[in-house]
Amino acid sequence: MEKWKRSARLVDMIHQLLIKPYQLIPLTTFARKYRAAKSSISEDLDIIDEVLRSEGNGKLVTVAGAAGGVRYIPRISEEQSRAIVQELCEKLSEPERILPGGFLYLSDLLGDPALLSEIGRIFATVFAEQNIDAVLTVETKGIPIAYATASFLGAPVVIARYDYRVTEGSVVTVHTISGSSKRLRQLSLSKRSLPEGSRVLIIDDFMKAGGTVRGLMDLLHEFRAEVVGVGVMLESPAQDRLVEQYVSLAKVTEIDVKMRRVRVDSGNVFKSREEK
Amino acid sequence: MEKWKRSARLVDMIHQLLIKPYQLIPLTTFARKYRAAKSSISEDLDIIDEVLRSEGNGKLVTVAGAAGGVRYIPRISEEQSRAIVQELCEKLSEPERILPGGFLYLSDLLGDPALLSEIGRIFATVFAEQNIDAVLTVETKGIPIAYATASFLGAPVVIARYDYRVTEGSVVTVHTISGSSKRLRQLSLSKRSLPEGSRVLIIDDFMKAGGTVRGLMDLLHEFRAEVVGVGVMLESPAQDRLVEQYVSLAKVTEIDVKMRRVRVDSGNVFKSREEK
Repeated sequence: MEKWKRSARLVDMIHQLLIKPYQLIPLTTFARKYRAAKSSISEDLDIIDEVLRSEGNGKLVTVAGAAGGVRYIPRISEEQSRAIVQELCEKLSEPERILPGGFLYLSDLLGDPALLSEIGRIFATVFAEQNIDAVLTVETKGIPIAYATASFLGAPVVIARYDYRVTEGSVVTVHTISGSSKRLRQLSLSKRSLPEGSRVLIIDDFMKAGGTVRGLMDLLHEFRAEVVGVGVMLESPAQDRLVEQYVSLAKVTEIDVKMRRVRVDSGNVFKSREEK
Repeated sequence: MEKWKRSARLVDMIHQLLIKPYQLIPLTTFARKYRAAKSSISEDLDIIDEVLRSEGNGKLVTVAGAAGGVRYIPRISEEQSRAIVQELCEKLSEPERILPGGFLYLSDLLGDPALLSEIGRIFATVFAEQNIDAVLTVETKGIPIAYATASFLGAPVVIARYDYRVTEGSVVTVHTISGSSKRLRQLSLSKRSLPEGSRVLIIDDFMKAGGTVRGLMDLLHEFRAEVVGVGVMLESPAQDRLVEQYVSLAKVTEIDVKMRRVRVDSGNVFKSREEK
């Protein structure tokens, strides 16, 4: 392509920005590629920024100076979030999900990249102002949600392991009690995975008593890291909750294994915003 | 926003398309939102499609008729792929990665959403013509790459487990020998996670002898599913390889634990294309 029209330039610019959230792209990169004046590029960026903001889809942030450029910050509007959470709750309320012991089958939802991307975008928007350095989860089911969230926060994912391997290098290990089964388990995190003083968001798929999240908090304490938020896709009622502050997208409000009936409503994700 | 100019419309349309790869968006959705004629929307889509194709970033596919619409198929150009693989090899060759036993520390790379997204885009492009129904991996390290790949293929991820839980529902279990440690392990997959006859892409982070991939193949055989491809981020030399056909992005060509020296070159990903 020899000559770039504004329309073609806009399409290519927004593609570059969207596929690399948070990455700083120098304006000269654009100016050189499209053989356009920096002033034209700035105008294009203004158009993109305005549309993103007006639709609640995030914004562009421009950094001035020689080392400057522009980066895309992804967000999602509350209207879209509510629609996604509602759809999620409907899916979670399907009686086929009920497993022995009152668990719910979640693997299909946790394997759906489109849904995960939406969930990640919601969590990234909820915790947008927390300056998150890393997203922590524990193997196995929390990983896809943590990865989706991290991709929209521009932060790395770190994964704690129950059963660590040599491939983790040196690890720090704590012991944690699973609230539901009262079983004592080891929880390990690679020493080099998290710098001291990191601001960490904990993400998991499911929380009942919160023993796993509590274990992850203990682990972060060993790393002198700060827990700046906890996000779970689904919470289930528990008597002695070990975690006080968290954001949940959905909540099991009723489950009857015998009658094969389950009801899932919105979690506290919108409540906490309204209370602010 | 009351009135949509073409430039604003283009920005919003490509945003909607890019954040939902493979999802069919009816033209009427666009026409209604922007209060524009379908012919204008079609022109916009032609512009987007042309730019995507000319840059090797995929394409739009339009489905005609009442149930029709447009969907975005993400791809990456060979030029970009080569640059990403080269950067990956450089990172993998850092001597700090060498662990006891000749393993390499990969967790930082496997926790970097931007890199994973690029790797996923490369695998999705390599296996683009395989009509993939699902991407299969095994806990834990393969999950982020599988998820990234699946998101660019519009396919779900299914995760085999060494240590399955009640939350998987009924499972099918096979036994597999880890080629490196000669240890016999169970490998399980939830019965409802994969329909019979599925065309499956296996994705993992690392392959030496290929025992894990072999185990995943055995598991797929039990599901009467077809293995249509195997993709690994990093391969390491092995004498008796249990898997013949695979695509690797990078390859350990030399490792000396004592001298703390490791050399990683491109895998067979570009070779197999040239040989075609």
